[in-house]
Amino acid sequence: MSTVPAAILGPTGYTGLELIEILSRHPSMRAAYLATARDKQPRIDAEFPRLAGRIDPAVAQCRPIDHDAIAAACRVAFLCLPHEAAMVHAPALLSRGVKVVDLSAAYRLKDAATYAAAYGHPHTDAPGLAGAVYGLTEHARDAVRAARLVANPGCYPTAAGIALIPLVRAGLIRPEGIIVNAASGASGAGREPKSHLTLVEAGENFSAYGIGVHRHQPEIDQALRTFAGGAERAVLFVPHLLPIERGILETIYADPSRTGLDSAAVTDALRRAYERERFVVVRDEAPALRDVRQTNRVHVNARVVGGKVVVVAAIDNLVKGASGQAVQNANLMMGLEEAAGLA
Amino acid sequence: MSTVPAAILGPTGYTGLELIEILSRHPSMRAAYLATARDKQPRIDAEFPRLAGRIDPAVAQCRPIDHDAIAAACRVAFLCLPHEAAMVHAPALLSRGVKVVDLSAAYRLKDAATYAAAYGHPHTDAPGLAGAVYGLTEHARDAVRAARLVANPGCYPTAAGIALIPLVRAGLIRPEGIIVNAASGASGAGREPKSHLTLVEAGENFSAYGIGVHRHQPEIDQALRTFAGGAERAVLFVPHLLPIERGILETIYADPSRTGLDSAAVTDALRRAYERERFVVVRDEAPALRDVRQTNRVHVNARVVGGKVVVVAAIDNLVKGASGQAVQNANLMMGLEEAAGLA
Amino acid sequence: MSTVPAAILGPTGYTGLELIEILSRHPSMRAAYLATARDKQPRIDAEFPRLAGRIDPAVAQCRPIDHDAIAAACRVAFLCLPHEAAMVHAPALLSRGVKVVDLSAAYRLKDAATYAAAYGHPHTDAPGLAGAVYGLTEHARDAVRAARLVANPGCYPTAAGIALIPLVRAGLIRPEGIIVNAASGASGAGREPKSHLTLVEAGENFSAYGIGVHRHQPEIDQALRTFAGGAERAVLFVPHLLPIERGILETIYADPSRTGLDSAAVTDALRRAYERERFVVVRDEAPALRDVRQTNRVHVNARVVGGKVVVVAAIDNLVKGASGQAVQNANLMMGLEEAAGLA
Amino acid sequence: MSTVPAAILGPTGYTGLELIEILSRHPSMRAAYLATARDKQPRIDAEFPRLAGRIDPAVAQCRPIDHDAIAAACRVAFLCLPHEAAMVHAPALLSRGVKVVDLSAAYRLKDAATYAAAYGHPHTDAPGLAGAVYGLTEHARDAVRAARLVANPGCYPTAAGIALIPLVRAGLIRPEGIIVNAASGASGAGREPKSHLTLVEAGENFSAYGIGVHRHQPEIDQALRTFAGGAERAVLFVPHLLPIERGILETIYADPSRTGLDSAAVTDALRRAYERERFVVVRDEAPALRDVRQTNRVHVNARVVGGKVVVVAAIDNLVKGASGQAVQNANLMMGLEEAAGLA
Repeated sequence: MSTVPAAILGPTGYTGLELIEILSRHPSMRAAYLATARDKQPRIDAEFPRLAGRIDPAVAQCRPIDHDAIAAACRVAFLCLPHEAAMVHAPALLSRGVKVVDLSAAYRLKDAATYAAAYGHPHTDAPGLAGAVYGLTEHARDAVRAARLVANPGCYPTAAGIALIPLVRAGLIRPEGIIVNAASGASGAGREPKSHLTLVEAGENFSAYGIGVHRHQPEIDQALRTFAGGAERAVLFVPHLLPIERGILETIYADPSRTGLDSAAVTDALRRAYERERFVVVRDEAPALRDVRQTNRVHVNARVVGGKVVVVAAIDNLVKGASGQAVQNANLMMGLEEAAGLA
Repeated sequence: MSTVPAAILGPTGYTGLELIEILSRHPSMRAAYLATARDKQPRIDAEFPRLAGRIDPAVAQCRPIDHDAIAAACRVAFLCLPHEAAMVHAPALLSRGVKVVDLSAAYRLKDAATYAAAYGHPHTDAPGLAGAVYGLTEHARDAVRAARLVANPGCYPTAAGIALIPLVRAGLIRPEGIIVNAASGASGAGREPKSHLTLVEAGENFSAYGIGVHRHQPEIDQALRTFAGGAERAVLFVPHLLPIERGILETIYADPSRTGLDSAAVTDALRRAYERERFVVVRDEAPALRDVRQTNRVHVNARVVGGKVVVVAAIDNLVKGASGQAVQNANLMMGLEEAAGLA
Repeated sequence: MSTVPAAILGPTGYTGLELIEILSRHPSMRAAYLATARDKQPRIDAEFPRLAGRIDPAVAQCRPIDHDAIAAACRVAFLCLPHEAAMVHAPALLSRGVKVVDLSAAYRLKDAATYAAAYGHPHTDAPGLAGAVYGLTEHARDAVRAARLVANPGCYPTAAGIALIPLVRAGLIRPEGIIVNAASGASGAGREPKSHLTLVEAGENFSAYGIGVHRHQPEIDQALRTFAGGAERAVLFVPHLLPIERGILETIYADPSRTGLDSAAVTDALRRAYERERFVVVRDEAPALRDVRQTNRVHVNARVVGGKVVVVAAIDNLVKGASGQAVQNANLMMGLEEAAGLA
Repeated sequence: MSTVPAAILGPTGYTGLELIEILSRHPSMRAAYLATARDKQPRIDAEFPRLAGRIDPAVAQCRPIDHDAIAAACRVAFLCLPHEAAMVHAPALLSRGVKVVDLSAAYRLKDAATYAAAYGHPHTDAPGLAGAVYGLTEHARDAVRAARLVANPGCYPTAAGIALIPLVRAGLIRPEGIIVNAASGASGAGREPKSHLTLVEAGENFSAYGIGVHRHQPEIDQALRTFAGGAERAVLFVPHLLPIERGILETIYADPSRTGLDSAAVTDALRRAYERERFVVVRDEAPALRDVRQTNRVHVNARVVGGKVVVVAAIDNLVKGASGQAVQNANLMMGLEEAAGLA
């Protein structure tokens, strides 16, 4: 096969599963090595029976995280690991010539002190951090194409970045005091069973959490600074937990930077920014989560009302917010068509 | 029986059903007359099989809206009717000595022009409007007690009013530029089947609607003016549709009116306002919808973070947001214990 | 207060919460002592914020399981404990004069060997087992009234028993080869977070489990033998997990015992059996779970079709299937009105 | 393009949408003509915003059902129309050389009288009915390959057929008295909003319907007769409505045809029947709906327990139960790889 062989480290979580699903439909990249840190490596189709018969039997058996074996078998690796583990395995794979897309937060925040404050442990791979490219693809395409290590953006920051960067860059909204009111499906919290994530507790429920202190807040700030010259502290980020599996909807409030700004102007700024972007759809009406479910698309709508600029952005947190964007980035890194394998 | 006999006009919708359920547990008020505008009046336990055996058989058969018959049988009437119908039946019942709690929007907006603009038809009962008491009970108790016609508040305005009135009144937040980001379960949209409300469309979904143009926006503004001396245009209101049956969560953003305001100060203002209120719980953490489900309670939490005052309020839209508050008001109007029949 | 004071042992699970909710509306019984085996006893309104302000503050603080203290404060105790713990605490409370309704399975199966086989541990309270009354209230009312220890039936057996006993007893169906195809909401699996019970796994899902080997199968068999002279092995029981919080629907298939049996005959047998029963509704159409949600009712429908007798029964697993029937039994044991506090 | 151009008649329902999604990932077939009977033809991406940017703009605009135009543009047509309409358009397209996969029930039941009894209107295309091939692919592959008109099986009969045919054919179960207890997600009821399908009514609910009288019962009987020499009246079919979007789980009960039959024997019969079948997975444990969601697979498990053979089968009703199997059939009819475009 001339398809690009890829490793997935940490295939037993939801982003790992989503990667396997995407790669199973990919015309030019394939899952070739599933590596897990578990002592007893499962068959992935025992872990996820929905994969039975849908994955190469030779690949289905998970293997240990063996850098040499991975490098012998694969040209690119997706890391779906805890942040600390990513900082161990990314340099080991890079040194063996394997390109890396890291889906953890390890390489997202460029400032190690900010990282340590947000994640509660020190950053242990300064060279990696220096070289990593923040892979918000639509705003970092050339850098991603040249990258050996891509920090795949967080789910919430992906939606916020796509929604806000053109407006901040165009000077249409004030770069501070932006409110990102967000809601995510429960898959964003991972696969580990926790009390507040059971169907009985999370179902028929809705709640805010991490109000103003969530770790994605500095990441959104950084994205606005990096790609749009935003302020040091741009946003107040307030996530909520939705009683559904997947999807992120962000309802964003910003102050217009001038009086007289109207809905046409903000919509036009988004249209111009994304007119050639396959995965961004600028809508005339507010999008719903179903519109993007199981696609790699961002649907975004903006208007001026009640003295505020209101932007609504929707993504699938497991696709454009994680594994889909990871494949989009890997496609660029490997010289494939950017949209290959993606809906 | 010495219990107060009550009529329900429009018992076949969700607020009607909720009223019947509440009254079935009420120690001193009972459903005595179910009146429907339908040509063919159903038995209510055929309409809602869950009521089978749980309602007086003599009452279960719905009857026409006959003002004299209602007045002969009942001392108070709950109107769960379209706005236009409420303006017809409320005066007819009042003139026959029946007190009225109107769950439609007919008597909520004191200014007839604002009403006409919001609801798309003229107000046809000026005397009723002049005499109606806006029944946000915790802030209008004495007036409700003396009222013959109570306009039961809208679901969203109930949560927003309880959350914001003490903060505006205490001058802790600026009275303009307040953002009320709200989310409601689908029962708030009524019982009529519509395309966007089917399980397949509304389930596993989330979306904003009526951004800045919803009819509850002027009602919230009015509540803040009436009870807290708020501004003419105080809030930008953005509701969302949750994939659940019931519950409203509002995440509210306001600008502090002075620097240095902290979470303790805003929490304290709420605590003092509601320390004797049975149905308002001021929480140290953000509430979840499950915390108030099928209760008449408002759970509210406030903090200062990221330069904003953030208030989160939760209610059950069918209880405190409709039928529960209606019974709370009727209890006061009829001289009963305010909390009778309510959880 | 002249209300009956009741203890709840194990109030932090879902049956405990449901008991507290029911007792909060009960006119003549009250929660007076919440006893937990946890080392650090929580306030129950910290454990369940929805109880904030809705429970006597003096009671809200959970206390250790102190038999003397419970006996001093309470006349009846509800045990929501693991089976093994129930066998320790039931005799201790009984010996102190406290009547006991046990919601565990400890005293349900009269044969200790069957119990040990089904539950994987020996029965350790033979005298208790001998004296316990199996509290399927509609079929054991007099015995319950006289009982000191009631084994509250399992959720699935409650629905199956109510549905089948009259038909077996009347000889309308063959007493063997009965298939009980059942489906339950996730609250039936308890509050402990487990992998298959998270919203992401259990939501938008449906599956069978414990096919033919579930512990409720011998309990259903025993109920049919005890109350209807059924066969030693009467049923094949196949439960399923529904993606909802609460409710059990059982679709039951039995062979008619004679040719020519028709729907009218089986319906009539149920009608006669339950004509004076407040909590059993014999329906002409198949019931839905919503019809019984948060009520203590059983809705049941029977017909003959395709050569089989098909019976559909619906209950709320946390109410008639657990805490509601427990209160129904306790009402009888304490000489109160059987339906007090129940919807 | 050398891909096969396909028409979809009736693209605005759920099977139409699913077809568009599948064809968007298909390497060798494409949606080329969307035909609707609506007076005002919508753009399909206005009807389903999730298709925005994901469908050829020249195709997105729906067009009238013009047989000549369809024949000029397409080599195969998928009919997602009401049964009566299918009987009009299928012959018109066939006569113009377009092969047809009909997703309605029009051509499923070989006996016109049975059809008329089940569907309440006469069959109006006897020649079509005579020539149509019932497309349960795994059991009709060669006939499908040669067919010009394929009757795509019903969702429930697909699962039942796959589960039962090998067991009946091998003589392991008695060919009569089979109970097919089934449950389907709400998408099976179509896109038209109806009272019982709203989120508030269908959510957190579960109920049986059409007990023993559903139109899929004779179709299952026919499938067992056709492919396994089954009895005239083989099954009692009892469907239920699940509170989810998609998926069918069938729990099937049959009598073993001989004593001593064990789980290994029934499992082995299924394994042998499907060992080369890509889309059938014979499992050692009972499957869950999530295992097959958005795949074209059938997961099936069988055992002998409690004197019965119990078979559990799971499919996605919109994929293997409708549009996926339709594409599987069309692939064969057009000489493409059977699995092309299918997961």
